[in-house]
Amino acid sequence: MEEQKVKIGLIGLGTVGTGVVKVLKDFANIEIVKIAVKNLNKKRDIENLDESILTNNPFEIVNNPELDIVVEVIGGVDPAYDLLKTAILNGKHIVTANKELLAKKGQELFALANEKNTVILYEAAIAGGIPIIMPIKTTLTGNKIHKIEAILNGTTNYILTKMEREGVSYEEVLKEAQALGYAETDPTGDVEGYDSAYKIATLATIALNQRVDINKIYREGITKISAKDMKFAKELGYKIKLIALAKLTEENKTDVRVHPMLVSVKDCLAAINGVTNSVVLEGFPVGRVMFAGPGAGMFPTASSVLGDILAIAKSIGSNDILPLMKCSHTINAQQTDINETINKYYIAVTASNTPGVIGCIGEICGRHNISLASVLQKGIDEKNTADIVVITEACKESNIKSAIKELKENSNILNINNLIRVME
Amino acid sequence: MEEQKVKIGLIGLGTVGTGVVKVLKDFANIEIVKIAVKNLNKKRDIENLDESILTNNPFEIVNNPELDIVVEVIGGVDPAYDLLKTAILNGKHIVTANKELLAKKGQELFALANEKNTVILYEAAIAGGIPIIMPIKTTLTGNKIHKIEAILNGTTNYILTKMEREGVSYEEVLKEAQALGYAETDPTGDVEGYDSAYKIATLATIALNQRVDINKIYREGITKISAKDMKFAKELGYKIKLIALAKLTEENKTDVRVHPMLVSVKDCLAAINGVTNSVVLEGFPVGRVMFAGPGAGMFPTASSVLGDILAIAKSIGSNDILPLMKCSHTINAQQTDINETINKYYIAVTASNTPGVIGCIGEICGRHNISLASVLQKGIDEKNTADIVVITEACKESNIKSAIKELKENSNILNINNLIRVME
Repeated sequence: MEEQKVKIGLIGLGTVGTGVVKVLKDFANIEIVKIAVKNLNKKRDIENLDESILTNNPFEIVNNPELDIVVEVIGGVDPAYDLLKTAILNGKHIVTANKELLAKKGQELFALANEKNTVILYEAAIAGGIPIIMPIKTTLTGNKIHKIEAILNGTTNYILTKMEREGVSYEEVLKEAQALGYAETDPTGDVEGYDSAYKIATLATIALNQRVDINKIYREGITKISAKDMKFAKELGYKIKLIALAKLTEENKTDVRVHPMLVSVKDCLAAINGVTNSVVLEGFPVGRVMFAGPGAGMFPTASSVLGDILAIAKSIGSNDILPLMKCSHTINAQQTDINETINKYYIAVTASNTPGVIGCIGEICGRHNISLASVLQKGIDEKNTADIVVITEACKESNIKSAIKELKENSNILNINNLIRVME
Repeated sequence: MEEQKVKIGLIGLGTVGTGVVKVLKDFANIEIVKIAVKNLNKKRDIENLDESILTNNPFEIVNNPELDIVVEVIGGVDPAYDLLKTAILNGKHIVTANKELLAKKGQELFALANEKNTVILYEAAIAGGIPIIMPIKTTLTGNKIHKIEAILNGTTNYILTKMEREGVSYEEVLKEAQALGYAETDPTGDVEGYDSAYKIATLATIALNQRVDINKIYREGITKISAKDMKFAKELGYKIKLIALAKLTEENKTDVRVHPMLVSVKDCLAAINGVTNSVVLEGFPVGRVMFAGPGAGMFPTASSVLGDILAIAKSIGSNDILPLMKCSHTINAQQTDINETINKYYIAVTASNTPGVIGCIGEICGRHNISLASVLQKGIDEKNTADIVVITEACKESNIKSAIKELKENSNILNINNLIRVME
């Protein structure tokens, strides 16, 4: 089939939008007909930009009968939801980088797209430049994937890498990351794990082949990780990473969550440093495969948007456009509560320097069916207290919570400094 | 479009073929109509195998008008070439795991397939279970990829990992790998780099978007790597890996080769151990992305075959089947000669324990425009000789060869033990 000249409308001309315009200039078969921006007068860093195609009314794009594809790179639910809904109703194909919208409104939008025989592609929404959606939907489509372990947020991975390498506090690194533009002024979305949760919601939905509800994803950020935790983890052979996790349990429930984890230095995810993202999938028959690369940034994100645009462009006019890329989920995941999950744990406490305090921790854990895998006691300070760190064997989250409660009540335990899950 | 029942013929029922039959039993829309085997009487490890579908005449498959897809997993050029050519002429789609055939006859077969409007998919031929062909052809299709660094052979990576970890010789590990079935009785295809060369020929062709000639790929195996090289590399912060490399040079030539390289422990490829494969791509706009996973084995390879079969199955009946997956190369690569390439080098020599011998090495290198980046001298032995290892800065291969020639002639240099390229 001869490729046709494909007409696109772009909503958003921030970092990603600018990248998209820059990379599309080399593709003569793609024409950007219209770009919606917030501020028509803002100076743009784009050579030979034809300003007559800018509009501050995005509905001019989604209602434009001339367009084949609407590319949305503004993020957030409002007004992106209304815009894309209108675009789909008007028969447009969608390319979006909007992880929050997909996590919150994906089900509805995909159903609508199926009805209208259009496609929504979103390679850029998850793990930036890394090809992950397309491989899951195509090459791996026959696999039963039962586990995803991923680093999906560059900002938090940058902060944790820096803390680990320089031995400095979370607060210090955050300030520096904000100064460098790696973290936002209000870093909540990143550091509290919202961004990762949006991404794992969609990633788990397509990889595990059942609809994951963003509201049922357990989420915990990195703000409580201390320089001491980093140091203890290192001594025990681990790094600390913000992990987005999704797995099928033995009871065929779906365990999806985002929280910091101790990751063995032998695990490939431990080697993912700085703003890099990575996704590890485990399934049958493929086994364990890993993808890594830039999780954000103007050009890596534009690469994924470009790939989606070209895939649609190549298929426009076909009687069934990109059949493998359509949403095919009919089952709603039965999501586990965090208290039901099984994990190994890192527990860091400050204890009084009393003989038998380690035995006492072991005993309390034992009463809650928790075995200890390793124990680390660090030097006694002037107050005659000691830092004690234990790694447990796998146990139920509700049991560890009961044990922690009892530890808190024990007079030898002066403080519970942290409780972090450990990746197996 | 409603999915049709798709009929396939399978040529080959060895490890990969058996895996394909096992995984396909879960897909009711795919019917294996016929399987060609060498030996009809061999006992097969497949439950409920209908032996009436076996044949020892593979032409019964490629000439069978009922079939939609021919899956070829016998390997080698003869008779696979004749079989697939006939199948394509008969309008069949092809799924193959045959890297040698693609490297040697790919151009002709792809041209024929384009003519007959059929597709040849080959995800399993390169890096086993890792999705790499589909991502390059789809998500990354708009990228200009300028470099590939890859570990594409599990046997050699297993041997090198074992040598590095246990400090043992190549010969010793090879024997063990043969006993475990990780290496073949005649290991030439793996250890001399032929297998990696076949794979990088096709991978470079699609990623760099120009036809790479297998006959012009420089190839060097791992048989000369010694336990001492491993040890010296480690002390200098490197591992030794068999690397398949492809890059565009500044003169817009194509530099494709397979040989051992020292890889910095900080590079993600250094963390690829055992039989795992990995492909790192560098391009614009994506930046640097990495893929890793099982490079061989019954089920990982079957996963890729399965993905290709399902992609075709989903598209059969479409007026333009998998347009992005078709061959679109029209340019023949201008391949560099190894002597023109620019590399850093590891040189290991045995020298007499004479004052100034390191200076003498530096002087000889200097005369050939080669600067030294680091030097390591190891203990003097009873013969009053010393092991000296140098790492050079980047220089031309022809220059290093002249320098080595001169070093050989120098009376202080008793032996040139090895010359290994170093990854930058």
